[in-house]
Amino acid sequence: MNKILATALCLAASSAFFAGAQEINWSRPHKQSIVANPDSTLTVSFFAPEAKNVTLTGFTPNQIQLSKGDDGNWSAEIPGVKPDLYTYSFIIDGVKTLDSGNTYILRDCNNVMNEIIVAGGNADMYVTKDVPHGTVSKVWYNSPALGKNRRMTVYTPAGYESSGQQYPVLYLLHGMGGDEEAWSDLGSAVQILDNLIASGKAEPMIVVMPNGNAEKTAAPGFSDEGLYFPEFDHSISEKDKFEKAFPDIKNFVEKTFRTKPGKGNSAIAGLSMGGGHTWKISMLMPDAFDYVGIFSGAVGWNGHGVDEISENDAMLIQNQFANPPKLYWIGIGRDDFLYELNKGYRGFLDSKGYKYDYHESAGGHTWTNWRDYLILFASQIFK
Amino acid sequence: MNKILATALCLAASSAFFAGAQEINWSRPHKQSIVANPDSTLTVSFFAPEAKNVTLTGFTPNQIQLSKGDDGNWSAEIPGVKPDLYTYSFIIDGVKTLDSGNTYILRDCNNVMNEIIVAGGNADMYVTKDVPHGTVSKVWYNSPALGKNRRMTVYTPAGYESSGQQYPVLYLLHGMGGDEEAWSDLGSAVQILDNLIASGKAEPMIVVMPNGNAEKTAAPGFSDEGLYFPEFDHSISEKDKFEKAFPDIKNFVEKTFRTKPGKGNSAIAGLSMGGGHTWKISMLMPDAFDYVGIFSGAVGWNGHGVDEISENDAMLIQNQFANPPKLYWIGIGRDDFLYELNKGYRGFLDSKGYKYDYHESAGGHTWTNWRDYLILFASQIFK
Repeated sequence: MNKILATALCLAASSAFFAGAQEINWSRPHKQSIVANPDSTLTVSFFAPEAKNVTLTGFTPNQIQLSKGDDGNWSAEIPGVKPDLYTYSFIIDGVKTLDSGNTYILRDCNNVMNEIIVAGGNADMYVTKDVPHGTVSKVWYNSPALGKNRRMTVYTPAGYESSGQQYPVLYLLHGMGGDEEAWSDLGSAVQILDNLIASGKAEPMIVVMPNGNAEKTAAPGFSDEGLYFPEFDHSISEKDKFEKAFPDIKNFVEKTFRTKPGKGNSAIAGLSMGGGHTWKISMLMPDAFDYVGIFSGAVGWNGHGVDEISENDAMLIQNQFANPPKLYWIGIGRDDFLYELNKGYRGFLDSKGYKYDYHESAGGHTWTNWRDYLILFASQIFK
Repeated sequence: MNKILATALCLAASSAFFAGAQEINWSRPHKQSIVANPDSTLTVSFFAPEAKNVTLTGFTPNQIQLSKGDDGNWSAEIPGVKPDLYTYSFIIDGVKTLDSGNTYILRDCNNVMNEIIVAGGNADMYVTKDVPHGTVSKVWYNSPALGKNRRMTVYTPAGYESSGQQYPVLYLLHGMGGDEEAWSDLGSAVQILDNLIASGKAEPMIVVMPNGNAEKTAAPGFSDEGLYFPEFDHSISEKDKFEKAFPDIKNFVEKTFRTKPGKGNSAIAGLSMGGGHTWKISMLMPDAFDYVGIFSGAVGWNGHGVDEISENDAMLIQNQFANPPKLYWIGIGRDDFLYELNKGYRGFLDSKGYKYDYHESAGGHTWTNWRDYLILFASQIFK
């Protein structure tokens, strides 16, 4: 009886059985579809014997034509692949297909893609290492200003549960199409913070990643809107609505977590739309943040378009810089479509004599840059 | 300038831009591939104009042949679809493909599938509603017995952060192929607990969902093993290793969270392998749990096969029932491959006069049953 039941248990334990489904691809021995080689090439091999055409998207160039072999595998060698976190998918005869040889999937708004990390450089900060790990929580808070209960992601550093200590707080804001899961998932913020703190490059800190879409309560699937398809829609971020409701977040966090009080222990940063949020919130709350990070920021974004700095904003910024933050950090890529906008804004700051740090990188409006900016910014704050 | 930059921002905000990729499927207006109709049918329509054959897997029957229309859509009407959470995928010319019209994805070991909920019945408990929400945390604890830092999922009920109260604890264990994410994701445990508690059917409780694979520290991607392909491997659960290390979990939880002390405020339940863990842990710690739930349990599973109840186990169970738990709950489906094993075990309990509650359902070794068992079990504990 032993042997029969042991076999039954092992069969039952196959995922196909658990799922109640007979998946044909899963019964084959596993074969990685993409392998990163030590010589900076990727070897691609994807099994699709009946396909007429298979391409790979997500690397450089963005559409890579695969070649069909006699064994039904479509393959390519991709040379010179830089260390990074890549998101990719296959396109089989016009149909986007995820990689059945890879269970790691990331979502960006309504786009789901497989994930692969090519090790080296900053990409080594994106991987989970054998270091003390912080806690990641999905927490609901009440926002009286928005009239909603809303979801946020909160990172508390390793040791938070038992240390009894207070910690400084970084508020980290996502861009359009994102939500409270963007920085922790696509942005690798959890791994980056764990690794920076463990290596002594960043201070232990709480990182709060709220949902910046004022009309939403939570990421898709986690609100009572059901399992809807998240369309890109900028009306979910009406002008200044999230920014003006931000004190609800700060109040909740300071009431709920052991936060070090004061401007010197508070930072705010965000990417793209979240860079615009950071820009506006930090001027609306001039005594709140000693560290301000604007990553590829939509500075001046008014919800429907971009204006010159308004008289009202200019006054708020003047007020903010009367008692300036210790660090007002602007980062952008040379190919970013917001480059000129940020250049104009830097001109404004220069003309007023307001001090800021500026980091210009290669590349454009990408998570590669935003992860790097987080590493740079988080390493400079609370010191 | 306004208009041009507004357009640029909207373009940038499309997920294709953010991903740094031109995804061909995403540029079309969104069209749901599967629509649940009020008459209990599903309407399926999947765009794959070049495909020679498209099937759908995950419903009944498990392989549904779709018919190609002139417009390149492959379609079917599926009648009589019962309310439930379904996981499905398409198979296009032999290649498993996820549904680009659906961003909701669940993983079961190494099988990734799309998710759809057909409303009604118990399935209404699986959806996020406009009720107070608990917090879901990924927390690392140290296990001296296993010599590892390990990850767990912890649900604290709505109000935990501000109530100052103590709460009873349910330890909820996954099956083979699962990990600390199984119950919260596939098992809908977060939604089920939120909804049960909000409707007064369950007491507010903490739910602890640890990783039951003694040789692992965390779910795939969250340990320093990197982004490996999770193969099914029962050696990650060596005989009694997790069970004997369980006090490390309980000690950590009681030190870290505001738990109500005592047997009357502790419950343990698990499915399949986790049902076996529950069975063994509850006898190893006879004073710990007043509520024991064995869902499709691998009772007697010894890591390599299934034995008759050993003399040692019989003594431990005798000891456990000397001061019996208030509820010793066994649930199993009539088609479950572990049905006979559980029948044998019930015979053993009957022969000794040990009292238990028994719930026999339709169906087999499925998440549908385990979600239902959680609803039934959680509604009966701490009362």
